[in-house]
Amino acid sequence: MQHDTAFQMAASNIRFGAGITGEVGMDLVDMGLRRVMLVIDPALVALPTGKTVIASLDDNGIDYELFDRVRVEPTDASFQDAAQFATAGNFDAFVAVGGGSTIDTAKAANLYSSHPADFLEYVNAPIGRGRPVPGPCKPLIAIPTTAGTGSETTGVAIFDFVEHHAKTGIAHRFLKPTLGIVDPENTRTLPAAVAAAAGLDVLCHAMESYTAIPYTARPKPARPIERPAYQGNNPISDLWSMRALEMCRESLLQAVAHPEDDHARGQMILASALAGIGFGNAGVHLPHGMSYPVAGMVREFMPAGYVTDHPIVPHGMSVILNAPAVVRFTASACPERHLQVAAALGADINDVDERDAGDILADTIIDYMQKLNMPSGLAAVGYTDADIPALVQGTLPQHRVTKLAPKPAGEKELASLFADSLEIW
Amino acid sequence: MQHDTAFQMAASNIRFGAGITGEVGMDLVDMGLRRVMLVIDPALVALPTGKTVIASLDDNGIDYELFDRVRVEPTDASFQDAAQFATAGNFDAFVAVGGGSTIDTAKAANLYSSHPADFLEYVNAPIGRGRPVPGPCKPLIAIPTTAGTGSETTGVAIFDFVEHHAKTGIAHRFLKPTLGIVDPENTRTLPAAVAAAAGLDVLCHAMESYTAIPYTARPKPARPIERPAYQGNNPISDLWSMRALEMCRESLLQAVAHPEDDHARGQMILASALAGIGFGNAGVHLPHGMSYPVAGMVREFMPAGYVTDHPIVPHGMSVILNAPAVVRFTASACPERHLQVAAALGADINDVDERDAGDILADTIIDYMQKLNMPSGLAAVGYTDADIPALVQGTLPQHRVTKLAPKPAGEKELASLFADSLEIW
Repeated sequence: MQHDTAFQMAASNIRFGAGITGEVGMDLVDMGLRRVMLVIDPALVALPTGKTVIASLDDNGIDYELFDRVRVEPTDASFQDAAQFATAGNFDAFVAVGGGSTIDTAKAANLYSSHPADFLEYVNAPIGRGRPVPGPCKPLIAIPTTAGTGSETTGVAIFDFVEHHAKTGIAHRFLKPTLGIVDPENTRTLPAAVAAAAGLDVLCHAMESYTAIPYTARPKPARPIERPAYQGNNPISDLWSMRALEMCRESLLQAVAHPEDDHARGQMILASALAGIGFGNAGVHLPHGMSYPVAGMVREFMPAGYVTDHPIVPHGMSVILNAPAVVRFTASACPERHLQVAAALGADINDVDERDAGDILADTIIDYMQKLNMPSGLAAVGYTDADIPALVQGTLPQHRVTKLAPKPAGEKELASLFADSLEIW
Repeated sequence: MQHDTAFQMAASNIRFGAGITGEVGMDLVDMGLRRVMLVIDPALVALPTGKTVIASLDDNGIDYELFDRVRVEPTDASFQDAAQFATAGNFDAFVAVGGGSTIDTAKAANLYSSHPADFLEYVNAPIGRGRPVPGPCKPLIAIPTTAGTGSETTGVAIFDFVEHHAKTGIAHRFLKPTLGIVDPENTRTLPAAVAAAAGLDVLCHAMESYTAIPYTARPKPARPIERPAYQGNNPISDLWSMRALEMCRESLLQAVAHPEDDHARGQMILASALAGIGFGNAGVHLPHGMSYPVAGMVREFMPAGYVTDHPIVPHGMSVILNAPAVVRFTASACPERHLQVAAALGADINDVDERDAGDILADTIIDYMQKLNMPSGLAAVGYTDADIPALVQGTLPQHRVTKLAPKPAGEKELASLFADSLEIW
């Protein structure tokens, strides 16, 4: 195999500042856009964020239709519902206001109304057919209201494929929002449980990007257009990832405990965008790959602090529960990078032995998990030893991300990682 | 005045890697582009870089016309010459291969053929009329062959307005290249003198972005579209600037002295792109603002190591000659940032007094200048005390950049800064 010699940093437009949500109507006017599908988390419509967005659209004479049938952890059905609404509405732009579920739903609505196709056509292989998006979609402005997914910066939309009890997604640069409006005012009323899980998602995005294989370990593509967005670590994604980790250390616990702290809240929603640009150009690996069946196979778990009418393992929680076992497993492949992550998160790495890198980083992560009231392992969200084969089978198709792990994990290794994640402490 | 509360990071698409120049033909095909104006530095046509580009266009069936009438330090006339060629050729894309002069010439050719107008229409006020570019231009792929301007990442095109003996430019996000192909192979044959001046331009881009006023010190715009690209320092541009400074410390002297060192050369062309994204979103200030008359009023100076048929003060040289005096002047406004720059460049700042920040940074810069054989001041490139009033008058219209200085500089202060720059050591 000839290895790649190049990486590409794809564009993300991010505007950051307190109180800028109300600019969205002017942005639409200045882009010449007049008919908009407003995809919004139903819980936000009557809150200050929703009111600000709606007032801004009204004040600027935007003709919009409100779509609030966003499902927390969306499904193929909820994506298609939004896509049908979009197709019928003949919109010329999209505005998404909410967390990752909402922004991802808007991406799907935009995609299938811009480039109609059978639903599985664009879904990642092997679950879907993985056809590249054939051209640009319509403009999408994303206004995140959690500090977690970084969806405002990426071309990824994740959903539960219900028939398979599996999470998968659609990933293409043409799904990337035209503009992300990153406003700390929009996380002021975030419940602590949501802020905690979202913040741990940021931590994992940055940690996984930084510890992914280097871009020079990927096969060289035949054509530059075939170079994937998930390219492995590179000198530019490293900048984003490392800074996001430092910001988690400085502000994550404080932002969850004290949502009135404007600075800490601002740092976390900015860290979410930075980590999003980082993993959008480098990729995530095993903690995310293993999280998809953990979330997709949920039976009865209803997390405290979430408003939901169906069982869910929130995304950030489903990721972090695998992280300690993963880093103990992957550390030997690049111990220095694992120690750099631990140090950025606050661990003292003076005079440590590289052979302890995995334990040191795992302990650092566990400390954050405990302080943020995460469950103590997969058992606490309803899984047992008997589920491990199914969790492994649900992870194997996620090779778009798992192949970026610095140490390859087959069935045996995945089974061991899930077993180690049942009871973390 | 109400201050701004937001900053926006605008997109730059950068691909980095050794040997990727030959991908350009496939990129054009994959973007559906078939008729191309190839703007190329005449000195490169017969060198490996030019041959690689031409072979790639030929192999991919691209119909191109070669334009090599690029002037080193372009003028209004040379920009218009390229624009006429572009208009006559009815191209659907542009490829620029060369340093900042070449890439800027391609931006101008693209602009005036895409949106025809009187030449002064888009030129920065007060020299031009400063009309915003009315819409997107055609695709432009930029292949830099110096590690300096970062022009492959920015929406800026600089030229000499000959009638006024002044440098000025055109600046708008729609001028930004669609893709920058950043290939260390293309700086392998760079003459040492060119590599030195270009590298000091990188250093100044990063230093000026990092010490510019913060984005919250700018007036709040009435509409988000009026937020300028040059926004002042912000948490994202700081990442780019600081890393570019560290890379200058690690690789600048080595890359100039040993062009066969692939790693050092790669670090410097990547640092140039990082600093370009940094200043493209934050801005430069006095060293650049003062450099425009220094370059524009040149009389007889012909720098060693440059192939040119007319006197020039190379851009990087014209900038660095002002830098020591400027940082001594600006340090008191934000001494901590000046010390951080000095430390990133290799100075020991343990136990130093903040009041010495300007001298410490100036001495650090002078050390690089001496090791890189820069002239010892403006006197060495032909200026005397008698030129100072004209240099000041040439700087005053550059308020698009000078207003970003952390300490305001009027006529009196500028005169003093130029006087201090005549003989630096």
